[in-house]
Amino acid sequence: MTSDNTPPIGSVVALGGGHGLSATLRAARLVAEKVTAVVTVADDGGSSGRLRREMGILPPGDLRMALCALAADDDDHDRLTRLFQHRYGGTGALAGHAVGNLVFAGLWELLGDPIEALDAAGSILGVTGRVLPMSPVALDIAAEVVGLEADPRVVRTIIGQVAVATTPGRVRRVRLIPPDPPAAAGVVDAIENADLVVLGPGSWFTSVIPNVLIREIADALARTDATKVLVLNLAPQPGETAGFSAEQHLHVLRQHTPEIEFDSVLVDSRMPLSATEREHLERAAAGLGARVVTAEIARTGADGNMMAVHDPVLLASVLATSTPAPAGE
Amino acid sequence: MTSDNTPPIGSVVALGGGHGLSATLRAARLVAEKVTAVVTVADDGGSSGRLRREMGILPPGDLRMALCALAADDDDHDRLTRLFQHRYGGTGALAGHAVGNLVFAGLWELLGDPIEALDAAGSILGVTGRVLPMSPVALDIAAEVVGLEADPRVVRTIIGQVAVATTPGRVRRVRLIPPDPPAAAGVVDAIENADLVVLGPGSWFTSVIPNVLIREIADALARTDATKVLVLNLAPQPGETAGFSAEQHLHVLRQHTPEIEFDSVLVDSRMPLSATEREHLERAAAGLGARVVTAEIARTGADGNMMAVHDPVLLASVLATSTPAPAGE
Repeated sequence: MTSDNTPPIGSVVALGGGHGLSATLRAARLVAEKVTAVVTVADDGGSSGRLRREMGILPPGDLRMALCALAADDDDHDRLTRLFQHRYGGTGALAGHAVGNLVFAGLWELLGDPIEALDAAGSILGVTGRVLPMSPVALDIAAEVVGLEADPRVVRTIIGQVAVATTPGRVRRVRLIPPDPPAAAGVVDAIENADLVVLGPGSWFTSVIPNVLIREIADALARTDATKVLVLNLAPQPGETAGFSAEQHLHVLRQHTPEIEFDSVLVDSRMPLSATEREHLERAAAGLGARVVTAEIARTGADGNMMAVHDPVLLASVLATSTPAPAGE
Repeated sequence: MTSDNTPPIGSVVALGGGHGLSATLRAARLVAEKVTAVVTVADDGGSSGRLRREMGILPPGDLRMALCALAADDDDHDRLTRLFQHRYGGTGALAGHAVGNLVFAGLWELLGDPIEALDAAGSILGVTGRVLPMSPVALDIAAEVVGLEADPRVVRTIIGQVAVATTPGRVRRVRLIPPDPPAAAGVVDAIENADLVVLGPGSWFTSVIPNVLIREIADALARTDATKVLVLNLAPQPGETAGFSAEQHLHVLRQHTPEIEFDSVLVDSRMPLSATEREHLERAAAGLGARVVTAEIARTGADGNMMAVHDPVLLASVLATSTPAPAGE
């Protein structure tokens, strides 16, 4: 391999869940030698929720999506990736299950261990890198929510990822059930040895923040020498962050994990921020130890406007310049 | 490849279903360059029956077993084969389904065609050769059964593979529902171009005979220049062939398909046949145009006795000598 073809980053760890994590992984694989996904395991809805309840396994949906984002892209693996993402039709007991979720459930039963099952699924899809659950324990999210009663000061507890993500109230704080879960084997090592750690984008309270609520992960993030990038969402999510400003995303993250500092907060340059909003965002970023980096990282729609989806190539080019050049080059 | 390593047979087609077909395939792959399985698709029980009813697909169980019998045997493929054969535990909606059955169902939905789905599943497992359904249409077996009423002459119709295989009555004749189903694409070509065709062993009325009830398959079997071997079961099956002699197996096959002749009928040399039974068997074989070939083809148990399971290596060595030597050697 010539130096021109050497990926600019050695090792990237991306934390989160859902489509947001997939976007980061699709970008990271373009610029890193090694990519590790650390995936939230608190989903309780849909195919994942059914399998979790019926079989006592980790909710597989976000793990499956992360595997597919890192899958080899030749024709054979591409067909397998489409198979893993395919949801059964019909009206029977399988309807709505993603095929890959069932394969993961079978591998777990066969091999007796979620990490081995993920590595085996990764091998089927030709994944370069690794997908790890943030914890070996299936978790639930409990949220303190206001705005559900006539008296806006009344705080109620809402439990479950689906319930929290769709509450008509305003989420103030989230915690994990059971409390103090362990990190999965390999997660802390990956973070400590990373050159770059990326948190977000994604559902802020139910995919992004849960990772840093695990004590071992928060400690490793505080300790690592890796460059740390926080990728903001391109649009507030209906439900959990409806009406949130960019600045508020940073504030709630800091409330949950005051000890973790970041190097940069990544925002699409086309986000409609007023001068005041921009100033507030920069101040909030500074509170995390970070500078605000603006660049075009979202896809552009046919109408020429920014879409609420990250573009892997654009995001990759920004990530590639976010770490110091490797020693000796 | 040196001539010593050239498989002694070019192309083998094996017809049947269940464990019997798997035994033949495990033998055939040892001695043939190319193996094609033609699989009965009339199962209506267990995981296959549920998927067939819920999703309108071919019953996948026997197809899956045939794929696994032809799968590559390196470590990675061996793990995938065990995954395909694994049945989910637990008490939920997946309990009892074989993982490979669900993968096949997903591939069928994704690709829109059972043959493409089988080829894709074969590619996952590193199958050398091909697994084809005998028909693209899911079928049912209807049997004329006597012995279910006080009057032993009363004939009743029993429908469904499970019901026929377990009827306490005596099966006289089977037919397919719907009648006159087509053969699947590729089946007739494979039979016409085969060097060796193997029918049986297996559940006689519900796995073996259904193949020859498809007109196109029976015609191809009558027409092909291939050597044709009929492999008898090592023991009568409780239910459908309880109390059947070896000779009776040949008689009922001939009743169903008088036009197909065979070259040899393969029987384990340790089958306890009296001189009279042996004579009857030879006469019945002659009625099919075949000679009786006896050899040790069953496994030997720890007690030194013949088991009711074919040994792939022993069966392979007999199959290898059943065809004329290839031209030029």
